Amino acid sequence: MTTIATLGSHCALQVLKGAKDEGFRTLVVTERKRERFYRRFKFIDDFLVLNRFADITKPNSISFLKKRDAVIIPHGTLISEVGSEEVENELHVPIFGNRNILRWEADRELKEKLTREARLRSPKTFSSPDKIDRLVIAKLPGARGGLGYFLASDAESYRKNLKELQRKGVIGKNTPVFIQEYVVGVPVYFQYFSSILKNELEFFGIDRRYETTVDAIGRIPAEHQKGLLPSYIVVGNSPLVLRESLLEEAYQMGERFVDAVKKLVPPGMIGPFCIEGVYNEDAEFVTFEFSARIVAGTNLYISGSPYFSLIYDEPMSMGRRIALEIKNGIESKSLGKLLT
Amino acid sequence: MTTIATLGSHCALQVLKGAKDEGFRTLVVTERKRERFYRRFKFIDDFLVLNRFADITKPNSISFLKKRDAVIIPHGTLISEVGSEEVENELHVPIFGNRNILRWEADRELKEKLTREARLRSPKTFSSPDKIDRLVIAKLPGARGGLGYFLASDAESYRKNLKELQRKGVIGKNTPVFIQEYVVGVPVYFQYFSSILKNELEFFGIDRRYETTVDAIGRIPAEHQKGLLPSYIVVGNSPLVLRESLLEEAYQMGERFVDAVKKLVPPGMIGPFCIEGVYNEDAEFVTFEFSARIVAGTNLYISGSPYFSLIYDEPMSMGRRIALEIKNGIESKSLGKLLT
Amino acid sequence: MTTIATLGSHCALQVLKGAKDEGFRTLVVTERKRERFYRRFKFIDDFLVLNRFADITKPNSISFLKKRDAVIIPHGTLISEVGSEEVENELHVPIFGNRNILRWEADRELKEKLTREARLRSPKTFSSPDKIDRLVIAKLPGARGGLGYFLASDAESYRKNLKELQRKGVIGKNTPVFIQEYVVGVPVYFQYFSSILKNELEFFGIDRRYETTVDAIGRIPAEHQKGLLPSYIVVGNSPLVLRESLLEEAYQMGERFVDAVKKLVPPGMIGPFCIEGVYNEDAEFVTFEFSARIVAGTNLYISGSPYFSLIYDEPMSMGRRIALEIKNGIESKSLGKLLT
Repeated sequence: MTTIATLGSHCALQVLKGAKDEGFRTLVVTERKRERFYRRFKFIDDFLVLNRFADITKPNSISFLKKRDAVIIPHGTLISEVGSEEVENELHVPIFGNRNILRWEADRELKEKLTREARLRSPKTFSSPDKIDRLVIAKLPGARGGLGYFLASDAESYRKNLKELQRKGVIGKNTPVFIQEYVVGVPVYFQYFSSILKNELEFFGIDRRYETTVDAIGRIPAEHQKGLLPSYIVVGNSPLVLRESLLEEAYQMGERFVDAVKKLVPPGMIGPFCIEGVYNEDAEFVTFEFSARIVAGTNLYISGSPYFSLIYDEPMSMGRRIALEIKNGIESKSLGKLLT
Repeated sequence: MTTIATLGSHCALQVLKGAKDEGFRTLVVTERKRERFYRRFKFIDDFLVLNRFADITKPNSISFLKKRDAVIIPHGTLISEVGSEEVENELHVPIFGNRNILRWEADRELKEKLTREARLRSPKTFSSPDKIDRLVIAKLPGARGGLGYFLASDAESYRKNLKELQRKGVIGKNTPVFIQEYVVGVPVYFQYFSSILKNELEFFGIDRRYETTVDAIGRIPAEHQKGLLPSYIVVGNSPLVLRESLLEEAYQMGERFVDAVKKLVPPGMIGPFCIEGVYNEDAEFVTFEFSARIVAGTNLYISGSPYFSLIYDEPMSMGRRIALEIKNGIESKSLGKLLT
Repeated sequence: MTTIATLGSHCALQVLKGAKDEGFRTLVVTERKRERFYRRFKFIDDFLVLNRFADITKPNSISFLKKRDAVIIPHGTLISEVGSEEVENELHVPIFGNRNILRWEADRELKEKLTREARLRSPKTFSSPDKIDRLVIAKLPGARGGLGYFLASDAESYRKNLKELQRKGVIGKNTPVFIQEYVVGVPVYFQYFSSILKNELEFFGIDRRYETTVDAIGRIPAEHQKGLLPSYIVVGNSPLVLRESLLEEAYQMGERFVDAVKKLVPPGMIGPFCIEGVYNEDAEFVTFEFSARIVAGTNLYISGSPYFSLIYDEPMSMGRRIALEIKNGIESKSLGKLLT
């Protein structure tokens, strides 16, 4: 009997609750320090307790998971704590979705390649601080939730802010920094589910991130902001719905993304993904990131999203949608299509 | 058999899903370019495909709708794309609600008249830029979602910003501009349903708009804001609940509005409407707009709003509430009271 | 037969709706001016109409409540309008929860003592304006929703702003003012339910407050902010979910709080409470307040919260959770443990 497993972090609760609702056995892979936390939830049947997440590739872990016929639902923590290469090459357990794409999310150049292929409008990038001619945001590699990101208006403010963050130890001396145009606009994160069984793209929901301290500065009058250097650490998410006339474009972006993945990263996009960007002053959507797996913003909709209530008659979280797809795969004897 | 119809935009999905949930046939009037989008949704039975929405008043469209016994649910797109006069005089198909009031929403003077009659506290207006003596917001006519609105502190900054937006082509040379005091306060949109069958006002929910770029500037430190001219284009909505001690006043404002419409625009307020404003620093509500029909902010609550869950035991969207009213009208042989 | 009663304000609607859903008779204690408002809601069975809330301690009120076997659910209005001492000594009707702790919430020193005992990280406090060496927020006593709070960067701006608010009549000449470090970070309010019957802490949900005018200033460009003095009056709440990796710490803070109450305020924490603070730039949670009873932010989740949908299979508001606990208390003949 298939067990649905995931790393204890990020969106594990909704994934495992959704799996239980669809009738699966559930398993959390948890770091020892958080075992007690996950023991609180009755819908988790099984525990693989590790010292650190990276140990999931060890033979003992693999055999523990294989014995339980586990399918792993990948999320951001799998990428950031185990590593996309390790997942690709050493995690010898079936993964729901396309394990090859996780690398594309973690690598800035691959990411840009896929974004271009999907014809998603992107911010300008700057190869050197000296070329900065507008407001930019400097980003660090990896999926660590915005830690160390900073703003700059020119080469001088770039160097000043970089030094300040290096001094604080937030950024290492040799950390590569990626400089991107800061598009003035409201952040919107589009959450999709790509069903290869139904050959259909479903639009799940929308969120915006709640980031410290950048979402705090708007509450501080300009005169008290002197010296403030905002940080971009994600601590949560808040819900949004979109103007209906913009929804069609959101579907189209999602479909172009699915097409691009099919072309560049076989066997294509399986399951949840997210396109992340802002609407600029012309109400054009500019994409600055994507996530080719479930995002934590879906935690908003554990009891169902407005958009999924247009499609499903019972409350359907993204976690449950994944489990439903796996159940449909098993019932139609096409589970193999969903796993890599 | 009655078919519930609406224009494919704004809040069409919730309106038609709600109609289907109450057992109606459903019909979307869609522009050709969006037909494929609306075909995605299984709860839409029928399609009237037009080159542009304004063609809905053509004889072919009218006869298509009449043949299906269609009742049209009006929303913002009907007003902005077909026009309130055309809806009043040329759209010879029954409309849910009071078709005469749509004109009042589109006409600044009528709007002010109704607002006064309802004794809603309003911002000061300025007949000329030279009279500006405080922070103001300049607004353009129509329901185009805040496009071209701008801020000014005095005549000089008014002229500078107006010129800038004319230069960009956002505002035409001869577009009339309406100058309103900018009340510093938090935006709150109150959504109501006026049932003339039950002779009762129901409070449905609250939202705030999510506008680009004005909801983006709070994330930019003051020192990086030089030269930023915020725009006010609505791209979505986010949910709110109100302090319970303020809820009674919200009901009273809604009731005064219903009374004012009964007096000035027979046969009165039928179905959904919205009062839009801010709470100022004294926690007084100042109204700057109203919408005498369903607003897009209700899209937040497709699977039910917190306030309607106090009244209804199953998830009830505003779209479904409309359909329920029509169903009750049919069952009690008083449908005629709901249509104009 | 037990009647669930509460003061008509704050969160009365969800409390009484939840009580009705669990099969209780319901009673609202309402001021005369709001009687009509509460009569709108069919789930309210009984009305105790007073000229002012403070009259609830009068013999007539007490006997009215006793006759109906009423249990009072305390909330913020009970503290601010009746007074924690009066509730403790003169309200001779059973209260759900620990009536002794209400005083701790209203008294700054007791509050700090409990916060310390719970090892919650706190902002620095300043005993005199002359000691201000960073951005601070000045707060007034009581639970009046942020009225009269103001910011200052040094002794000079403190005195200027204090005078301005005294001149406006917002702050009295002799009102004591509490000066607290303003921690730059995003506000997060954690809502818990402590079940002494199950001996378990449940995490219910998260909100942030919506405050006028401070949540309005982020929409005003820096150049237009001159002279703005933000106020902090709560008019509503908006929903949030938390990054899952931060959720364990949220549980731990809640448990330390429950332990601290057990030690300092017997018989301990019974029912809902809230820990209120911000995540600073290091993503550390800094607590600035707690509420040892239901908070109005739970009004967001009248039809269920994301986190409670992990625990309960039907929509469960905080109001309903309270009623369920009382029902469980009655059924297990341990109601006495829940009342004081």
